[in-house]
Amino acid sequence: MRADVRFTIPEAGSTDLDGTVAVVVDVLRATSTLTTALARGARAVYPAASIDEALRLSQSLGREDTLLCGERKGLKIEGYDLGNSPLEFTEEAVEGKRLIMNTTNGTRAFLAVEDAETVLALSFLNLGAVAEAVLRQAPRRLLVLCSGREDVFALEDAVCAGALLQRVENGGMELELGDGARAAKALAGAQTVSADFLGSTEAGAALREVGLGDDLAWCASVDVLKAVPVLRERALVLLAREG
Amino acid sequence: MRADVRFTIPEAGSTDLDGTVAVVVDVLRATSTLTTALARGARAVYPAASIDEALRLSQSLGREDTLLCGERKGLKIEGYDLGNSPLEFTEEAVEGKRLIMNTTNGTRAFLAVEDAETVLALSFLNLGAVAEAVLRQAPRRLLVLCSGREDVFALEDAVCAGALLQRVENGGMELELGDGARAAKALAGAQTVSADFLGSTEAGAALREVGLGDDLAWCASVDVLKAVPVLRERALVLLAREG
Repeated sequence: MRADVRFTIPEAGSTDLDGTVAVVVDVLRATSTLTTALARGARAVYPAASIDEALRLSQSLGREDTLLCGERKGLKIEGYDLGNSPLEFTEEAVEGKRLIMNTTNGTRAFLAVEDAETVLALSFLNLGAVAEAVLRQAPRRLLVLCSGREDVFALEDAVCAGALLQRVENGGMELELGDGARAAKALAGAQTVSADFLGSTEAGAALREVGLGDDLAWCASVDVLKAVPVLRERALVLLAREG
Repeated sequence: MRADVRFTIPEAGSTDLDGTVAVVVDVLRATSTLTTALARGARAVYPAASIDEALRLSQSLGREDTLLCGERKGLKIEGYDLGNSPLEFTEEAVEGKRLIMNTTNGTRAFLAVEDAETVLALSFLNLGAVAEAVLRQAPRRLLVLCSGREDVFALEDAVCAGALLQRVENGGMELELGDGARAAKALAGAQTVSADFLGSTEAGAALREVGLGDDLAWCASVDVLKAVPVLRERALVLLAREG
């Protein structure tokens, strides 16, 4: 299997998505949060690229059983039901609800690869579960798209992307690695994942600055969720597990 | 000193260049080639973003003592005097000449950071010399811009950027590393530089495919040149050494 990692959203622009499983990662915090939400019983998460789009979506879905969620610069958008802190997404808050999620970078990443055969959401929380899903599907090509930070490289996403490649290889799949994939794998091999590590990154430091440091410990928890979000008709839902 | 590494040209777009020494790296092959050219006696190298711009420049500079150099997809442009293979840039070919250099990615990188206080060109050839120049200038911030490959991450540029950071730190300068800089340094620490390494990257494989594999051994030669190209009024010239 060919494996590529792109470190920013614009780098996905020109890529051929035929026969590709695309995996979007935005550790801090879009994919960590939406994976938590689906694991806690949300029916679906609709990524929205802008506040206007989120409001239009909420009008077409209806406000009943629908929650508006999202952040700008790490803080909840005014008038929204929830922010983008995974700790807010309790069973009580989200079970049975449809969530419209508006985030700075994560959302745009899904839109950039929506033409892939399958689009999954990765975080440290569901690393092993996503690796198993990739191994089951065994596509021609795996493309991991890091959301990055304002279209600049983000270390935590790169390490998470590399950790996925390690898991897929450990699962017995031989990978032909592109430059970005080689780099991501090397970075994952050199880095222990912890709240301290996440807090040392540029995105982590920004979260600590706005008082959201508690998110880091959760986002650094490896393999605590079995939920694999998959994009279906512009919404993320739980991938059905076979067997 | 703050140190940042950007892995693609668009990532330099929004960066503040005040008090910054910017270092452009395009190992395969723009910065390797232009450093070789200046070391071999070329008076100046003018980067041009397009073939049209190169022709306009050649008209304004005059064709006497001016050479048109450049490549598309690794091969010399029709009607040009030289390609972009550093091995063509012998003393005999370039001494005393002004070169107009048209390359796929390297040229655009210089234009992206031309507002920095100082803009230098880095390759493995002049790694130590560039590190010394950075240490002498001791700016508020060091920004290493990797040219990448068609606006996607290129491993050889990242490793070269990281090697520069290692040299600057070894020179006694404490660096505050951004995410990209941390990644580049980790990649450089894990990678031995050799022709085989360069040949294993996506850009290196493409050069081998068009029969330019001989360039790899030269471009992988560490510290063989003392030349430090600096951007002055849209041309690269040799930085005067002090002391």
